[in-house]
Amino acid sequence: MSDPSDYKTRDLPAGVRLCEGGVTAVQGFRAGNTSCGIKSEAGTPDLAMLVADRPCVTAATFTTSRTASHIIRVCKEHLAASGQRAQAVVVNSGNANCATGARGYRDAERMAVLTASKLGVDPALVMVSSTGIIGRPLPMDKVEQGIRQIEPVAGGGPDFARGIMTTDTRPKLNAVEFEAAGMTIRLGGATKGVGMMYPNMATMLCYLTTDAAVEPAFLQRSFSAAVDDSFNMINVDHDMSTNDSAFIFANGLAGNEPLREGAPGADQFVAALRYLTRYLAREQARDGEGATRLMIVQVRGARTPADARKAARGVTTSAIWQCAVAGGDPNWGRVIAALGASGAELDPDKLDIALGDVLVVCSGMGASYEQAAAKQAVAGPDVYVNINLNGGGHEATSWGCDLTHGYIDENATYTR
Amino acid sequence: MSDPSDYKTRDLPAGVRLCEGGVTAVQGFRAGNTSCGIKSEAGTPDLAMLVADRPCVTAATFTTSRTASHIIRVCKEHLAASGQRAQAVVVNSGNANCATGARGYRDAERMAVLTASKLGVDPALVMVSSTGIIGRPLPMDKVEQGIRQIEPVAGGGPDFARGIMTTDTRPKLNAVEFEAAGMTIRLGGATKGVGMMYPNMATMLCYLTTDAAVEPAFLQRSFSAAVDDSFNMINVDHDMSTNDSAFIFANGLAGNEPLREGAPGADQFVAALRYLTRYLAREQARDGEGATRLMIVQVRGARTPADARKAARGVTTSAIWQCAVAGGDPNWGRVIAALGASGAELDPDKLDIALGDVLVVCSGMGASYEQAAAKQAVAGPDVYVNINLNGGGHEATSWGCDLTHGYIDENATYTR
Repeated sequence: MSDPSDYKTRDLPAGVRLCEGGVTAVQGFRAGNTSCGIKSEAGTPDLAMLVADRPCVTAATFTTSRTASHIIRVCKEHLAASGQRAQAVVVNSGNANCATGARGYRDAERMAVLTASKLGVDPALVMVSSTGIIGRPLPMDKVEQGIRQIEPVAGGGPDFARGIMTTDTRPKLNAVEFEAAGMTIRLGGATKGVGMMYPNMATMLCYLTTDAAVEPAFLQRSFSAAVDDSFNMINVDHDMSTNDSAFIFANGLAGNEPLREGAPGADQFVAALRYLTRYLAREQARDGEGATRLMIVQVRGARTPADARKAARGVTTSAIWQCAVAGGDPNWGRVIAALGASGAELDPDKLDIALGDVLVVCSGMGASYEQAAAKQAVAGPDVYVNINLNGGGHEATSWGCDLTHGYIDENATYTR
Repeated sequence: MSDPSDYKTRDLPAGVRLCEGGVTAVQGFRAGNTSCGIKSEAGTPDLAMLVADRPCVTAATFTTSRTASHIIRVCKEHLAASGQRAQAVVVNSGNANCATGARGYRDAERMAVLTASKLGVDPALVMVSSTGIIGRPLPMDKVEQGIRQIEPVAGGGPDFARGIMTTDTRPKLNAVEFEAAGMTIRLGGATKGVGMMYPNMATMLCYLTTDAAVEPAFLQRSFSAAVDDSFNMINVDHDMSTNDSAFIFANGLAGNEPLREGAPGADQFVAALRYLTRYLAREQARDGEGATRLMIVQVRGARTPADARKAARGVTTSAIWQCAVAGGDPNWGRVIAALGASGAELDPDKLDIALGDVLVVCSGMGASYEQAAAKQAVAGPDVYVNINLNGGGHEATSWGCDLTHGYIDENATYTR
């Protein structure tokens, strides 16, 4: 699937403009990738680095897995030691450095130390990410060589986005800008997916940059809210990863008065952040392993925000409905079943469901509709499932994809 | 996959013997099936009936779905009206009678009334089950004809098991007997799977019969406990159905003193019930849609029973690990990830994991093992994942299957 510009402009807030370059669209950031042999295919990028010219106010969210990778512990310890500040992140792909014992922790720490020493910064200002196969020790000689040879540059955002990929079929990046009190503020981002994807508190790997000056508490609060409504609302296979991490680095170079609740530009910053995280999350779902269709589930009329979220995620996580979407089969009974199993409070006799704009369920029963139109609604690259619970005023959106032979092929022999 | 006798004798408790005939292995029960055109393939059985010669003490568990089929309401109302007694169950396959509005409720009630009138019993003594496509009204003319023409007979247990099938590749039935205080007590059962399978409080459809006299409260308690450790521990696709129902009918013809806590034979009854429900649950997992391998996940050393259950189910429900099992890939990192995401309390550095008898993870890290032996352990029809959390004294078993092209093919165009 290509990336028609429609995906980028969809939901772009008023006053927010697109920019090119991903994480390095923002002044004061450099990035790049290199190939050091962690992945078996020669020449494939497997190490990436993002560097800020100065320490950044940093917010982050991490996986809630009980078997989290050692990188999660290292990042949390560093953020605590630095007072929620960071200046660089080093990422390897091809190896998750998870279930690797005490050695895994030492290796993650060593990645930070080597990066800090290359850049001449405090190791506590370095974040570490790893993604790939679980259970194998990092080949530290290769990692070390990679850190030595990588050259982050001002235009390196697209390379950075490529360097963090595993089974992704394309890099995922975007950037935006807006004016606040006469200053131009930019945000850029890169992310990767695309299997073991049912984030809870974070996504697989996501890095956002901004030149806004932002108060730390406001940054963490805005970022957590944005992550909740974006990365925490996507599904590929209902599997949560051990390495999910999402970061935003704010270097303050825009020169604005630090953003906080009510400050000039704060609302626009939140809107731009929301747009960017939702764009990147949708791209992750669209590039789900084996996916041929993006599924957008919009729930309205829920009694509580939690019910809206449960209902929306319940539909994107239904494997049997994902198969129907793969087959272009408007078998909406499975949407009903998924809603019933989702844990959301609902009255089954009040449910309205439309596939695209074809109303297929009205008041909990099959509506009269053209079968051909319903088939058409699930036959394209974007499948919209619009649900009204008719039980309150809350809504939520979840993004998913279809379940195809491609997903199974990708995952049946991953370690071979 | 055939049903080698090993599956039947596995875990058979001491003093419990196998019998032939499924639900009609038990005296005083008749059963059968017929074809009345609910399914499109001519001659395929799509209506089944199980009849007791007298009212039975009855225990049941049902789906917890918020969009449950009308049959669930009818069964609950009838059991309340009859004082937890039943004498017959009528089952149609091919149509779930769910999301069919007020008409669906009337149709389910009418199935009971027609059956009651055929048998000359009170409609409140009739249970109703439906399974198949969601969202289409029942073709009541065909159902009515089926109820008229069906002839339950004493040897009809195997036909009954065939009559309730949807995408099952084979009928699932079994029966056992044991001696209690000089009396012989039998239990028989039939069940069906095999998609939209992640039961919670019940299975898809399951019917057990026994000639034991059993006190109602003891029957419900024993049955609920057995269901919790069997049907509620299987997974095919993490989708809970709208129609899950499980019943046990006890007609008392064995002439024993009614079973209750501590009565002669009560412990053996519980053991036989546990064997039978676990056997049938395992058969459901083994016949999961598209399945080529049965997965048996055994968790020991959990801090609480709930942690053991969460950990075991977490592994059978991991789609990405199910794919690895399909590919015969001993990619145990995904077991680690699934355990971490399961919600079970655990210390990642204490995990031991064996595939079959090949120890692949020791104290949370890769053990040294022969790769060929590990591959062998996931290459056969039964894949054992033995997990020790080393954190307490509780254990649980969950049954699942691999995820293959077959599952997707089965579900991509189900309504076409």
